[in-house]
Amino acid sequence: MAFGLADIVEVLHGVSARAQVAVVSGGIGPTPDDVTRAAMAAFSGSELVEIPGAVENLHVIFGRLGRSISPSNLIQARIPQCARHIPNAGGTAAGFSLEQIGCRFYVLPGVPAEMMQMFRDSVLPELEQLSTCAGMSCDVQVYGLGESVIGELLAEFMGEDKNPEVATQARAGVITVRITAVGEDEDEARRRLAPVQEEVLKRLGPAVFDTQGRSLQAVVAELFLQAGLTLAVAESCTGGEIAARLTDIPGSSGFFIEGGITYSNEAKTRRLGVPEEMIAVHGAVSAEVARAMANGMRKSARVDVALAVTGIAGPGGGTAEKPIGLVYIALADADDTCAEECRFVGNRVKIRSRALKRALNMLRTYLIKRK
Amino acid sequence: MAFGLADIVEVLHGVSARAQVAVVSGGIGPTPDDVTRAAMAAFSGSELVEIPGAVENLHVIFGRLGRSISPSNLIQARIPQCARHIPNAGGTAAGFSLEQIGCRFYVLPGVPAEMMQMFRDSVLPELEQLSTCAGMSCDVQVYGLGESVIGELLAEFMGEDKNPEVATQARAGVITVRITAVGEDEDEARRRLAPVQEEVLKRLGPAVFDTQGRSLQAVVAELFLQAGLTLAVAESCTGGEIAARLTDIPGSSGFFIEGGITYSNEAKTRRLGVPEEMIAVHGAVSAEVARAMANGMRKSARVDVALAVTGIAGPGGGTAEKPIGLVYIALADADDTCAEECRFVGNRVKIRSRALKRALNMLRTYLIKRK
Repeated sequence: MAFGLADIVEVLHGVSARAQVAVVSGGIGPTPDDVTRAAMAAFSGSELVEIPGAVENLHVIFGRLGRSISPSNLIQARIPQCARHIPNAGGTAAGFSLEQIGCRFYVLPGVPAEMMQMFRDSVLPELEQLSTCAGMSCDVQVYGLGESVIGELLAEFMGEDKNPEVATQARAGVITVRITAVGEDEDEARRRLAPVQEEVLKRLGPAVFDTQGRSLQAVVAELFLQAGLTLAVAESCTGGEIAARLTDIPGSSGFFIEGGITYSNEAKTRRLGVPEEMIAVHGAVSAEVARAMANGMRKSARVDVALAVTGIAGPGGGTAEKPIGLVYIALADADDTCAEECRFVGNRVKIRSRALKRALNMLRTYLIKRK
Repeated sequence: MAFGLADIVEVLHGVSARAQVAVVSGGIGPTPDDVTRAAMAAFSGSELVEIPGAVENLHVIFGRLGRSISPSNLIQARIPQCARHIPNAGGTAAGFSLEQIGCRFYVLPGVPAEMMQMFRDSVLPELEQLSTCAGMSCDVQVYGLGESVIGELLAEFMGEDKNPEVATQARAGVITVRITAVGEDEDEARRRLAPVQEEVLKRLGPAVFDTQGRSLQAVVAELFLQAGLTLAVAESCTGGEIAARLTDIPGSSGFFIEGGITYSNEAKTRRLGVPEEMIAVHGAVSAEVARAMANGMRKSARVDVALAVTGIAGPGGGTAEKPIGLVYIALADADDTCAEECRFVGNRVKIRSRALKRALNMLRTYLIKRK
């Protein structure tokens, strides 16, 4: 019924005919439905053997968890005899690499974090060695310009068979412009990349927030730490998401003092001192209340900068005058308080995610202008 | 250099030889690097034509955003002449379906939310019609048992060529046990599924939190609404993540009153009334402080139940006595306050994610016991 061991072996044959290198991810867990390990053994005509280093890794991991190793976990320390072990410091499934019919296979776990770490640490360095040419790439991350506008600004660099090649990807309001150059060696690739990168940065201007793989929140965190300013956040419709993303960043305790999720009107009044009359007159979703939340948070948390968000994420709560997707974001410092009105399209998840990005970008813009 | 239009057409030929149905995702954006549209046209020997319904959708989306349509967006309303349009209510890229060499192709955007909605709304109903047998599946979601333990408890149901088939997947502390049965019709599939599902639920017991595709936070939200209780959350190391996930759930304002991210010690004292001396004696990461945070939050927010989390997520802040991964979670109601000590393994992201799941499960267990 299911796509089983024999099908996997057939696909492995097909892959080895098409490719010189193949990465196989998933199916090396501890349960009987994990058949990649057995399929690779069958494909390579090799038996599964237990790898002492992988058994030791199991002992380390289970020791830290205070649990004992079960027999089904030991199977995760087995790899085909003809294979090389790829250690997995982050989990229990041993990875491995083997050559078959002129193709080099890398077998990694399906758990994303483990797979990515093993790919970075063990696979990528080998692939760089294998390659007869060198590639250099730069991801230019942009907030505030649509993908189609970026496409028009960079049209001459895009399309097939360009070197460097420029491609865009949209994800939750952030557009990534990837510039990839290939050359005979790294120097040549870098020489090709540099002028295009410079031109891309010039054309996209201040909408570019990063070229080093940092998230928008990581950029904001760095700017806060550089400026030596402290931050508190008062959230209503984003429900803690802004605080959660900023405190994802190691070292965020250096600037992030406090967050408040004042979801109910009562909490807005009690915690942040937003006047009840103001909520009654303007509504909880209004520029006035957003500003009062930011100011109330700034004063009570005794911080340099406070950000506040109030809006209607849906699916309930929208009206003709104040539709779902209407969000106010306010920013207060000792001198000034400003609020932005945003209208986001989409469902609850999308509206919250867009409000998060816009709020982070407001902080970024504020800190850059202050410099 | 890149994998271009000709390569895609070659792969499409290969796919049509192997499969009766193929889903193609991505490459129908507005920029020149989006070549799937042209590749499908070349593959089907058909020209791209503009679809009035898709143009209208562009007007609706850009109208709501208050932006005008750029020429490069219009290309997203074009599909091969021989294809059927698949509407995309959530975005600008029109999907389409066409038959070629005995294979039915569904071409969907790469943006995950758009792709999944179109797959559910337009593709899945057609596939169910096409199928000569019927499948029924049930995802049993489990928290608190390891994947290997579950594998041993359910060993006799797992492995290839079983009907029903049982498979497990681990993701951030939650294990999903998928039971899939196939029959000549839905009734037969359901009859096969039922006894295995019952047995699986019996063996896994109270560790099962869902069989209907709900997240742990959705289950907790439902239990709170059913119980008619209110909640406030005080977070330190989880930084707002618990509040953000609970308020992801539509209708969460019915029980979620307030959250506080008391990241600094000062905020713990000022907002929650945690005595400074207690922090000095026991440390901010201690069962005592977790309990005081929960009690302080419960009283100041005037709620029925308060949850508090304090811990060391790393990478800094760990000591021999209090290592990275040590987290205390406390739960307070009018009668009692209890705290759990947890020791999580992994990096900052993983520790925070595990603390989130454990905290949600504590709320779930509390609400179930109270019933």
